[in-house]
Amino acid sequence: MKLYDYAMAPNPRRVRIFLAEKGIEIPVEQVDLRERQNVGDDYLAINQYGTVPLLELDNGKHICESIAICRYFEAVQPDPALMGSDPEEQARIEMFQRLVELNGLMPAGEAFRNSHPAFEGRGMAGPLTMAQSPDLAERGTIRVGKFFEKLDNELKNKEFIAGDKYSIADITGLVAIDFAGWSKLVPTDSQVNLKAWYDRVNARPSAKA
Amino acid sequence: MKLYDYAMAPNPRRVRIFLAEKGIEIPVEQVDLRERQNVGDDYLAINQYGTVPLLELDNGKHICESIAICRYFEAVQPDPALMGSDPEEQARIEMFQRLVELNGLMPAGEAFRNSHPAFEGRGMAGPLTMAQSPDLAERGTIRVGKFFEKLDNELKNKEFIAGDKYSIADITGLVAIDFAGWSKLVPTDSQVNLKAWYDRVNARPSAKA
Repeated sequence: MKLYDYAMAPNPRRVRIFLAEKGIEIPVEQVDLRERQNVGDDYLAINQYGTVPLLELDNGKHICESIAICRYFEAVQPDPALMGSDPEEQARIEMFQRLVELNGLMPAGEAFRNSHPAFEGRGMAGPLTMAQSPDLAERGTIRVGKFFEKLDNELKNKEFIAGDKYSIADITGLVAIDFAGWSKLVPTDSQVNLKAWYDRVNARPSAKA
Repeated sequence: MKLYDYAMAPNPRRVRIFLAEKGIEIPVEQVDLRERQNVGDDYLAINQYGTVPLLELDNGKHICESIAICRYFEAVQPDPALMGSDPEEQARIEMFQRLVELNGLMPAGEAFRNSHPAFEGRGMAGPLTMAQSPDLAERGTIRVGKFFEKLDNELKNKEFIAGDKYSIADITGLVAIDFAGWSKLVPTDSQVNLKAWYDRVNARPSAKA
């Protein structure tokens, strides 16, 4: 088993944090995104989407998509549960994971990729050539601002995003906020719930993974 | 228990098909998106994101996000399994569900919302006012074309998207293709694997849900 990773990228970090919380160690191979190794023939042969992370199983099969990789490890080692342990908790955690991903992590990526000069012609992850879109950079920026507001509101009476337990929703949230910071999008000083939560999850040893 | 639904919209249809495949019937209440009931105060009070579908549990709690709602029903009634029954299958189905959602359903929505005159000032689902983006409409159109190509390729030797069993990935795929059709984006005649698969899943009674 092996994880294809890129140390600097936000999505592989989600899996690394997840594994650190589970106490699972597996071999890791770096795929250099700056050198565009992810869209080279060798890599596209095992992942036609050209994305990292990618999990290679012992039977030679591959699983891409961070959350699908996390699901695999949640199923093989349920403890500690990071995706919920009863139907309602599973649904609630999945809901928040998705909300944070769709409204925070993705807009942060759209803002960054569509404005940073290094991504000219690569307005999307993967092998597709795509012009940067100033519209999308602006929309991403607006949406990240709204995301901070809503998440601050959600965290008013909760220790973690999905309730009283740390979960995969917190992992996506932490990574989303750090990724938004690449575009200098940061919570305001008045968003005290959000900031206290951030400090809480960022202080866990897994945050360094 | 109650499902907030809107009969014409793609996302609630995912949940309705899922429930039909499970043979689960629950009370349904329509939220009229054309009348903007979803961004009215009453609805925002139970779902600040202003989206449908929304599941109201018997304890009064609410779960939004189609896939999170499906997860709840998968956990309370595992049979027939639509999200996998062992770790590898669960991961593979989640991977394909996400790939189809991210690369098919979402671009189809971006193409439609950012070009149709009825969505002026509402380039995004939910309560946020957002100008339509011609860039995003174009990007969505290109991405849907690529999605058809890749899915046709994936289906070369498979009966269903995630393998030999019908799963939630097929539900998202069916809904994505029908939604893309709203913008007159349709598979080409040469995409025979994709067309055969579409006919197969569309012929199931659940497709009418």
